[in-house]
Amino acid sequence: MENKKCVILKIGGKLIENDGILNDLCDRLVGYYPDCILVHGGGTLAGQLATKLGLEVKMHEGRRITDRNTLEVTVMAYAGWANKKVVAALQKRGVNACGLSGCDMQIITSHKREVKDIDWGYVGDIDCVKAGPLAGLLEQKVMPVISPVTFDMQGQLLNTNADSVAAAVAVAMSGYYEVELIYCFDKPGVLRNIEEPESVIPEIDRDRYEEYVAAGWIHSGMMPKLENAFRTLAAGVKSVRLTDPEHLNGGTVVKDTSRNR
Amino acid sequence: MENKKCVILKIGGKLIENDGILNDLCDRLVGYYPDCILVHGGGTLAGQLATKLGLEVKMHEGRRITDRNTLEVTVMAYAGWANKKVVAALQKRGVNACGLSGCDMQIITSHKREVKDIDWGYVGDIDCVKAGPLAGLLEQKVMPVISPVTFDMQGQLLNTNADSVAAAVAVAMSGYYEVELIYCFDKPGVLRNIEEPESVIPEIDRDRYEEYVAAGWIHSGMMPKLENAFRTLAAGVKSVRLTDPEHLNGGTVVKDTSRNR
Repeated sequence: MENKKCVILKIGGKLIENDGILNDLCDRLVGYYPDCILVHGGGTLAGQLATKLGLEVKMHEGRRITDRNTLEVTVMAYAGWANKKVVAALQKRGVNACGLSGCDMQIITSHKREVKDIDWGYVGDIDCVKAGPLAGLLEQKVMPVISPVTFDMQGQLLNTNADSVAAAVAVAMSGYYEVELIYCFDKPGVLRNIEEPESVIPEIDRDRYEEYVAAGWIHSGMMPKLENAFRTLAAGVKSVRLTDPEHLNGGTVVKDTSRNR
Repeated sequence: MENKKCVILKIGGKLIENDGILNDLCDRLVGYYPDCILVHGGGTLAGQLATKLGLEVKMHEGRRITDRNTLEVTVMAYAGWANKKVVAALQKRGVNACGLSGCDMQIITSHKREVKDIDWGYVGDIDCVKAGPLAGLLEQKVMPVISPVTFDMQGQLLNTNADSVAAAVAVAMSGYYEVELIYCFDKPGVLRNIEEPESVIPEIDRDRYEEYVAAGWIHSGMMPKLENAFRTLAAGVKSVRLTDPEHLNGGTVVKDTSRNR
């Protein structure tokens, strides 16, 4: 018997900040209900809030260090405003959504990142995603909407990368469902030429990935995204798609050919 | 057959702000798990955040008007930080909690308060509490932790009085359970003399309430609390208790003698 299908859709924080884009996206999400779990980022909202509050921004290699104040701001922005804004927009469209952070029903537990050369502060690396409560919500026709705030079972909330949350949720759900993981961001897919939105590469497998990296088509920020996609596929997720809100069925599909051989 | 018992516990925002008090309270809550629903306020956190952000505070008769910026701050502080802080503190103690706002699974729908003499802004008056999803969580041994953010089914989040949320949840749950509603605040109960913490009145019914008001023992802020308690009892809740975190089994019990006669 084939497993039931389930889509894990990760939407970038930038998409939530723009009301027009968020509304369009929520219109499209009606078609995915009820077999879908949404994972959202927080975009620049936390950073904006931190700036307005005059918090000192500590960065390392372009990435923010999450001190105690930054954590508080992050939880407020992601688990509070961004999460409830998306849930309310979905409910308006008849999609019965439920906003969750990692601590809720213990869905995502993590540990504070180990201090090596650098102390990232209250940043969590995921230990475990509980698929049971999420599957339970889907069965009740409730769409989980997950914020990238996790916790360590010792009472500590932790800021966690939203792409990693989406990947871990997709892997955990693949025990119960045939899972498609969609990364929805501000580009229509993986582009041959970053300047040309029409240059979307429709399909990438590991061989072609290495070829494209060698050719210089794929570089910088796209490389960890694709490496992450291959790891997710190896762990049981059926397919990974990278696209923008207007092409949820299009964009670039990443495939794990090593499994098909 | 007697209905199963369920406690709806409302904790004031001030109790959440103090980590020591919150931890003590969460220790005590372990004994109420899993037959308990928590409703929390946000205390001064939203006000503090608004002040830090330099938002103009608009007040009317001592109560804040919720403009768009204030709503955003309120949702961040209540549905974000306060809610997840409480959930994480409970999880640490083995209480499997789930933080919810009104929009989540549509548990609490409301409408924006009608503009009469004064426009209160994005303040919601409750229309409906869905007991089903809350009862479902209790059956799965999950403790719902509810923030006082509701919504209007049209995508609008609304700031709502936490005492009213607790009362509405208690009434809705009384269709399924024998419900005790506990208002946990910073006094050990209704006091004969506000200066004497030992002067707790152990039991109040409607006759004694009128007597105590006439005697001047009960006045100002305590009157709407008690009027609210009597309305809740008339709507099916078994008992209402007013107490502090240290005396969850003590304090003042409000009874509806009119139903017992």
